[in-house]
Amino acid sequence: MSDPKEPMARFYSVIPAGGIGSRLWPLSRASAPKFLHDLTGSGQTLLQDTWERLAPLSGNDRIVVVTGVAHRSAVVEQCSDLSVNNLFLEPSPKDSTAAIALAAAILVKREPDVIIGSFAADHVITDNKEFNECVKEAVAVAATGKIVTIGIQPSEPSVGFGYIKAGDKMDLPFAKNAREVAKFVEKPDIERARKYVASGKYLWNAGMFIAPAALILSVLEETEPELHSKIMTLADAWGTSAQEKVFEDVWPTLKKIAVDYSVAEPAAAKGLVAVVPAKFGWHDVGDFAAIAELQSGGKRNHLAVLGDVTVLSEKSSGILVSETGRLVALIGLDDVIVVDTPDALLVTTKEHAQRVKNLVDSLKVTGHSEVL
Amino acid sequence: MSDPKEPMARFYSVIPAGGIGSRLWPLSRASAPKFLHDLTGSGQTLLQDTWERLAPLSGNDRIVVVTGVAHRSAVVEQCSDLSVNNLFLEPSPKDSTAAIALAAAILVKREPDVIIGSFAADHVITDNKEFNECVKEAVAVAATGKIVTIGIQPSEPSVGFGYIKAGDKMDLPFAKNAREVAKFVEKPDIERARKYVASGKYLWNAGMFIAPAALILSVLEETEPELHSKIMTLADAWGTSAQEKVFEDVWPTLKKIAVDYSVAEPAAAKGLVAVVPAKFGWHDVGDFAAIAELQSGGKRNHLAVLGDVTVLSEKSSGILVSETGRLVALIGLDDVIVVDTPDALLVTTKEHAQRVKNLVDSLKVTGHSEVL
Repeated sequence: MSDPKEPMARFYSVIPAGGIGSRLWPLSRASAPKFLHDLTGSGQTLLQDTWERLAPLSGNDRIVVVTGVAHRSAVVEQCSDLSVNNLFLEPSPKDSTAAIALAAAILVKREPDVIIGSFAADHVITDNKEFNECVKEAVAVAATGKIVTIGIQPSEPSVGFGYIKAGDKMDLPFAKNAREVAKFVEKPDIERARKYVASGKYLWNAGMFIAPAALILSVLEETEPELHSKIMTLADAWGTSAQEKVFEDVWPTLKKIAVDYSVAEPAAAKGLVAVVPAKFGWHDVGDFAAIAELQSGGKRNHLAVLGDVTVLSEKSSGILVSETGRLVALIGLDDVIVVDTPDALLVTTKEHAQRVKNLVDSLKVTGHSEVL
Repeated sequence: MSDPKEPMARFYSVIPAGGIGSRLWPLSRASAPKFLHDLTGSGQTLLQDTWERLAPLSGNDRIVVVTGVAHRSAVVEQCSDLSVNNLFLEPSPKDSTAAIALAAAILVKREPDVIIGSFAADHVITDNKEFNECVKEAVAVAATGKIVTIGIQPSEPSVGFGYIKAGDKMDLPFAKNAREVAKFVEKPDIERARKYVASGKYLWNAGMFIAPAALILSVLEETEPELHSKIMTLADAWGTSAQEKVFEDVWPTLKKIAVDYSVAEPAAAKGLVAVVPAKFGWHDVGDFAAIAELQSGGKRNHLAVLGDVTVLSEKSSGILVSETGRLVALIGLDDVIVVDTPDALLVTTKEHAQRVKNLVDSLKVTGHSEVL
């Protein structure tokens, strides 16, 4: 047996690029989900921002994107360095376990000792250098046989995220910040969220997992044996002449389950999960209020503008997102949200930003699928 | 000398179709002013509504439209019964005296005893039958040698209109409601407006004038002899081979002055003006708040919609005007104004509806003439 490789030499980045982001309608659509948009004004999309963040860690050759067949061409266009072998296409959305386990199963066949890190394509991270350090520490801990998550320091008692209860510090010389994970907890009510934040022991679960692919698969084999077995069948067929047929037969039958339930929580119960607390800013930019917040950088009475557009604004604050480039005039509107797209216009306020999801649901019910 | 004609047999309707309506931007534009739009949801434009109201009074053959050359084709398209001889085109806007005096001067050459009634193309009147009765009474009074205005019963102490102080009742068996006009007063401040309304003697001046054309011209000859002389020159050239040249030379030199100042006020000072109080509803629909008000019919929390558009509205009131037909979603907006046009979008509130004019001014200054 050869010397063990450096942990980072075993590392592969996996970007699950799924999720429409209903609360970002009408910008985000089934045909053009959140990760395909520039929501930060960076000049590139969230997916491209994610790629740029991961490339220094794993190298361009070791970044996998898992996305829906419908987004194939957009992803290929946006990620010019993506290797054709590293684009894993899902025939239909089957939640995060299917996406991550498929990537794990395909990669583990390439490199049995591969460590994968899964990072959503549609989050915003404001300090790439600190992110880089955190991931390196997480990879080092993962190499000891752990599933490692990166926990976000809560900036407020949010009821929109699950929490990670951090346990004792781990006694590892190469991982000064890592702690055991006592447990994962579901999205709390506001009372409980306040207690979590006040205790100083809870971190937000941002869905970032770094672990040996083989470990993820072995946990899954115990918790969801049927799903595990099907994923292995799919991975075996991957890249062979049987691929199309096997995917056609098996993929539609996969159980939809979040990786938090199938892997992270059961593993935590067994003491297999660690957490590295993040030192970088993180935003899930889940709705337009969050984007406005991020864009304003804490300034009050600020009007954020995304898009190449002439805006005449008088006594107005909030956010304008334009895909049309039409001139927009705003007068006397506080915390407004205006999203101007070629076939649909949304006007609301930051206070009601979360309601956009309900609106999308009612669009489905009323048969307005052309704008979804 | 033959028997005098019935007053109504002498009557000609004149529709000055000018004025952009800046406070209705971006719907109303230099290229498509207020009167060319359906602002009531009637299915026809304000100009068409005006025509429909006047046709029973004067007949289609005796309705004149005075408008800018730029609006010729739109007016012709909208007013299919307009006689080519009754379309008077202004090379450039020269305020209301020029428009009305030109019509008076051309018509008086056709029929020396013509009585003209001038009615703006962009007002809303909610009871055409009462309007009809009022105008008939006004025409009967005009036939006695008066300039007759129709005064609007104030619904509130508006500072946006001039007022007419009504004097004694006229002792005319065929005009039971007509009164002398004591004087016209300019737009007052709010204190004065309240006093006017409380007194019960003041009516709004809606700019409707009914008078023998010859009388209008003779007053103008005294008050503005140069303007009068030029108008007569233009009228002499009208319909001749000299028309183009004379208009080119003379029109640009015309003094810009409102007919209120050149004719109505001086005539009132001489006891030549009467008023018939209106019994119909009248609205100048000067801004989007006024249109919302009119559309809601006094209902609170009502969202008025003008245009053929799918609207998803949740907890929203105010007005949406759509020229694009794009789907519009509104959430949690009170008294909002959304105006959706192909190249410009306005979002404001009823409270700020008047500010739209300032915005148009700043668009002029900043060189955005393409959307004006």
